Formats: sequence, C-alpha cells, structure tokens
Amino acid sequence: MNRHQFEKFYFDYASTTPLDSGVFKAMKPYFFNNFGNAANLYKLGRDAKIAVENALDKISLVLGCLPEEFVFTGSATESDNLAIFGVARANREFGNKIIISNVEHKGIIAACKALKEEGFEICELKVDKNGLISSGDLKKNIDKKTILVSITYADNETGTIQPIREIAEIIKKFRIRSNRVLPYFHTDATQAASYLNLNVNSSVGGSSVDLMTLSAHKIYGPKGIGGLYIRKGTNIKAVIVGGGRELQSSTGNIPGIVGFGEALFLADKYRNSEFCRIKELRDKLQDGIIKLVPKVVLNGHPEKRLPNFLNVSILDVEGEAMLLHLDDKGISVGTGSACNSQSLKPSHIIAALGRPYEYIHGNLRFSLGKGVTDSSIKYVLRHLPEIVGKLRRISPMNLKIDG
Amino acid sequence: MNRHQFEKFYFDYASTTPLDSGVFKAMKPYFFNNFGNAANLYKLGRDAKIAVENALDKISLVLGCLPEEFVFTGSATESDNLAIFGVARANREFGNKIIISNVEHKGIIAACKALKEEGFEICELKVDKNGLISSGDLKKNIDKKTILVSITYADNETGTIQPIREIAEIIKKFRIRSNRVLPYFHTDATQAASYLNLNVNSSVGGSSVDLMTLSAHKIYGPKGIGGLYIRKGTNIKAVIVGGGRELQSSTGNIPGIVGFGEALFLADKYRNSEFCRIKELRDKLQDGIIKLVPKVVLNGHPEKRLPNFLNVSILDVEGEAMLLHLDDKGISVGTGSACNSQSLKPSHIIAALGRPYEYIHGNLRFSLGKGVTDSSIKYVLRHLPEIVGKLRRISPMNLKIDG
Repeated sequence: MNRHQFEKFYFDYASTTPLDSGVFKAMKPYFFNNFGNAANLYKLGRDAKIAVENALDKISLVLGCLPEEFVFTGSATESDNLAIFGVARANREFGNKIIISNVEHKGIIAACKALKEEGFEICELKVDKNGLISSGDLKKNIDKKTILVSITYADNETGTIQPIREIAEIIKKFRIRSNRVLPYFHTDATQAASYLNLNVNSSVGGSSVDLMTLSAHKIYGPKGIGGLYIRKGTNIKAVIVGGGRELQSSTGNIPGIVGFGEALFLADKYRNSEFCRIKELRDKLQDGIIKLVPKVVLNGHPEKRLPNFLNVSILDVEGEAMLLHLDDKGISVGTGSACNSQSLKPSHIIAALGRPYEYIHGNLRFSLGKGVTDSSIKYVLRHLPEIVGKLRRISPMNLKIDG
Repeated sequence: MNRHQFEKFYFDYASTTPLDSGVFKAMKPYFFNNFGNAANLYKLGRDAKIAVENALDKISLVLGCLPEEFVFTGSATESDNLAIFGVARANREFGNKIIISNVEHKGIIAACKALKEEGFEICELKVDKNGLISSGDLKKNIDKKTILVSITYADNETGTIQPIREIAEIIKKFRIRSNRVLPYFHTDATQAASYLNLNVNSSVGGSSVDLMTLSAHKIYGPKGIGGLYIRKGTNIKAVIVGGGRELQSSTGNIPGIVGFGEALFLADKYRNSEFCRIKELRDKLQDGIIKLVPKVVLNGHPEKRLPNFLNVSILDVEGEAMLLHLDDKGISVGTGSACNSQSLKPSHIIAALGRPYEYIHGNLRFSLGKGVTDSSIKYVLRHLPEIVGKLRRISPMNLKIDG
C-alpha cells in the first residue's frame, strides 16, 4: 500500500497522525544545514533561534497570545504534568484544592494522584451520560482553597466538547467576587486543536484559559514535541529543571519546534473547511453503522462533539476482535476495551458515562482525519456489518440494549 | 555553503551535531507510512512497537544491558532530572544525602538545588585544576545516609574524563561493606557516548553504573530524544506521569527512538576509528594554537580528556569577540564566557578549575566531530592567530600568565 492508501483506511487520527508533507518540508533544513543549537551566538545558533521565534510567532497568532507565553515540551503528557504539578507546587500557600473531571487525560489524572500524596485535595466532577460536566457542579465546588481547575477541551475517546467558555466565565466571576487571582484554568486542547477555536481570549470568541496543552503529533506535526500556553503572570514552577529558560531547560528540538509551528499554522488555515468536510463524512459513517448494524450505542454527546469522532459500543462483541478483523481489511480503529491499552484496564472515560460494564467491551472509536474520503467510509460500511455479524454468531453474549 | 562545508568549519559538536544521513534514512519511514502509535493493536501500531524494540535491541547491545533497562526521554536534561529526582524521591526513607561534583551538567545541579528545598543534603566534590574529582574525597564523603552519587562521565566543557570505573568500585565496596544496595551511581554520558566505552558492566571493561544519561543529538541523532539506562531493580520514581509505562508515559516518539537506536549503533561502530582520527586532528589544533598564539592556557586534563575537546583560555581577549570574528570566517566554536549563555553567567565548570576569573573571559571551546578534516584545522590555524592579534591590539587587558 502506498501512503495515501494507508491514511485512507486509517481511522485512528485521535491516537496519532502521519506527518504532513508540508510540515516535513519546513522541518528538513533543520536536520541538516541548519542544525545549530539556539543557545549559541554564532550564525548557525542565531539561525536556530530565528527558527524558534518564527515558530512561536505562528503559534501565538493562532492562540492570540504573546510568543513568550508558550513553552515547548516533549509531549502533551509533559505539558499536562507541567500545568498540574507546576501550578500546584507553586501555589501551595494559597490553597490545596484542584478541580478536574472524571474524564481527564491520564497525564492529568496521574499527576493529581501524585499530588494527593503531597497533601492536595482532588475534586473530580462527574460527567453525565453524554460525557459533559455540569457547570452547576463546578460552581458548587469552587472555593477559596481552589488553586486550579483543569477540564479537557474535547475528550480523547468520545470527542465530547466541554463548555470551556462557560467554565472560564464561572472561574473569572469567582475570582472577581473573591478578589483572588486563583484558581487558574487549564485545558488540554490536544484533540480540539484541529477543529475548534484555540484563541485564549474570550473577547475574540475564544475562552479565557490560563494554561492550554497542545501536541504536534495530533495535528499532522512531528512526534516528540508538545507545548503549553501559560498566561503571562501565572505563578508556576518547572517540573524539569536545567540551564536554559526557567520552564524550558533542555536543548531546543528545533526541527520539532519548526514542525509544531507549521502544523498549527496549517491546522488553523484548514480549520473551517476540514471541520465541514470531516463532519459530513463522520455523520455518514455514523448513520451507516446505526442503519446497518443492530444493537449499536453511541458514546459521547450527540451534537457537542468533535466533527471527527465517532465512538460506539457494538453489543455482544469484543472491541479487540473487531479491531483485529478490521485491521485484516486494512482499517485501523481504536477501542477503549481492556486489551488495547498497555495498562490492560478498560477506558475510564467510557466507564464514566455510567453505562453497563459490558458496553465497554464492544467499544470502537473511529477518529477521522485528512486521508479519509467518501470511499473510505463506504469501505468501512461494506466490511464492518459483515465482521460484526460473524463475531456475533460465535459470541456467548446477548445483551439487551439499554438506551 | 553546502552541508559538508558547514560541518567542516563547525567546531561545536559538543553543543549539538547535525543529523547523520543514515540515521535520517532510518527515521524517515516512521514519519510517513509507518506513522503508527506503538500503544495500538493494529498493524500500524504493531509495526511501531517493533521499531521501538529494534531500537532498544541496538541500544542494549552497546550498553550491555537488557532492553527493558532503558527508557526514552525528551532530552538529556530530562534524563538527568529523572535520575536525580527519581532516585531521591523514591529512596527518601533510606537517606537524604546526594554526592555530585562541582562540574556537573546544569540539569543535575538544578535538580539538586530543588532537592535541597525538599530537605536533601547535597555534597559537592570539588575538582582539581585539571577538572578531576578525587577518589579519596569520595571515600571520605560516602556514608550510610548517601542514596546517590552522580558524576559526569566526561565533562561538557573541558572534556575531562572522570575515573568512573574507580568511582563505581568505591561505591560497590561501600555497599558490600555496609550491607546496603545504596548509594546508586548515576553518570551523565552525553559527551562520552561517541568516544568511550558505554558498557554498564565492569566485567567487560565498562563500569558498574546503575543509571546513565544519553542524548541522541550529541551523537548525530535527532534532537528531542534522550534516554536513561536504569539497572533492573533500581528503586526510582517517575517525574513525568501518565498512562503508559511507569517511567515513560507519553506517546512514543517513534522516528526519534529509531534515530536514537541507529545513531548509537553508528557511534559504537565508528568509536575506535573516530577516536584515533579525531584525536590526531585535535592534537594538531592544540599544538598549532599553543605554537602560534601567545598566552594560551589549556583547560581540562592534558591526557584524561575526550579526543574531540580542546578548551583554552586565550588571555586578554573576550571569548565572545573571538567567537564572532571566527563566525565571520564561517568557523563555529563555543565559549564558557558570560554572554554566550542564556543565563548570562560565566561557565561554572571553567570557574571550578580555580583559575583567575579573567581566564574565563578568554575561554574558547573547540569540540571536533565527523565533518572536521585536516584542512579544517589548517583553516582555523590560519585565522585564529590573526583574530587574536587584532583583538589584543584593542584590548585594555594585559594579564600575566599563571600556569
């Protein structure tokens, strides 16, 4: 198979994306001729520094922030860790409470678990059956001990979009009312980055977030580079410490940084057109599956959802079995079912929706992207019903659907 | 200038290296066709996992370790942080003392500074005028509170090689005598990796280290990927936490991992031949500079030094001025002088040698590498004396040499 065929039947863009060839072209000189270290004074070093500045300019235009408000990390996980650990440890004297949801990324959950041992109180807002948190819940739980609220922009399994603008407003009002600069608001925008407004200022239609996680490899950029927007004045402590800038101490990954800038620039450029194109394809896939496969339950919000996400539970069959049969046909999908993950635990996100445990078994996540076309959808709709039928014939299960 | 000319007059390989074209070739498929996430079950994911395993196989052969004893990080700084924070925080109950030298990498110094605030005691062994620590000093300071000794394999400014085999023996004997498994021994081998034995077992001529930091971009591999060898059974706590393996939680940077494996494989393959070739060139450069430029002082050990390092203080001139004049001729060098670094502080490593403060001003670091040939050396020897002469004529300083 050539590259385009690979991407055509790839339905796991939420897991990772192939590198865009334009992004690669932008990166390439920095592997070879312009291989300098940005910390150095001579021309090669200065050129590297200029490359970093250009990338930061591109990123700050998309985010509507200052270039110095963005730091590069090695991954979204590191960005999430920096936001959570960094704010918690720097603001300890002002409070010890952190509010998150029960569908956060594992990088956030794990950091909060570690902070519990350091004496922090973690308040987990429960999502409803569509995966949404309730703003009433947030209002009830936010108090003068609260130093940080971290709610993912759009969920990485169902694609459900949280009301982050409303959350930001609640936090802002609380801060004004209580005459404090805390809590800060952090959001993980890793999945949202290709499709939603990333502006960090509500005045231009974005939301007033104080910290925002991004990752290049989810938006057709390179793996191994993430970033964190940190609003100027935010009191935060580094997690990785060294000789460079306070929050970014290692030798800059210049090709990665250049690739990140270019990828975010392209994501922004094609945001609206890709949103519409992908949504149409996703809806076609969704309608087709529901029509052709009996006993299918949609996970995530029916409307407030990323245009490229379709998460379903196909009852009486195992997610892994479907995944492997689809793989035989060249189709790549994700599953929140147990055996897909290195931890061998079923998805906490699907579990949080409150459906019967068995629904997680038959979980499939289709996440669409650039390479998916109308014929990709037809191809899936041709093979999936057949695979499900075959697996159901040998399945010992026969669940009643529980809408 | 084409690529080879760039590299020919580049004398800052200790800062960063260009990507080897063979390494790039190995990485390239993982940007495009094989862009999968190693955590996934379908073919693209399994292929990514195999790529990681192959890289680990290559690395473990060079290190003489098990593949599972190596974790990937985003940088040497992150590796150093993981070693220092990770061991300290996991072994708190067994002691609170950490022994380092006063010429460690900033990632180690900064981590130790942060640990001081957490109640740890940091013992800094002072190096002698050649940059060597004294094993007697280590013996005197190692005690039952000591949980970690961290001494860099070869220094990143002077290239001085520490007696790490001897250090490892001292630690081993202490452990046996006191019937403890602590202290662990960590070494940062970032600079040593291309030229010295990296085997982690003394039985085959290496040294018994428990943790060892490496970085790909110092050995013609990609930027943005580092690694840490961690001996099986080492009690260590993650610094970055998330959903994946305990000490490596983010989505694997597959092109970076593949590049790292290939770069280390090549470093090992050409270790002996490059050692000899580079040492001869370095000695020629050293002899030439001492002969052609008056008032030059060598920094670092005359013999126990990486073959590619030449660090000198050229009295009565500013390092930055020389650097910029050499840059005009297309020659890139490093300096430990104040203005080269983002921190605007002069090198703590050159300062640790105990020479007069003014010697740091005229500091130049030549670090040789693959692109350097005999004609590169001649080119430097043609231009450097002239540049120094010009700068000395306008210099207000006239120091007496203090051998």
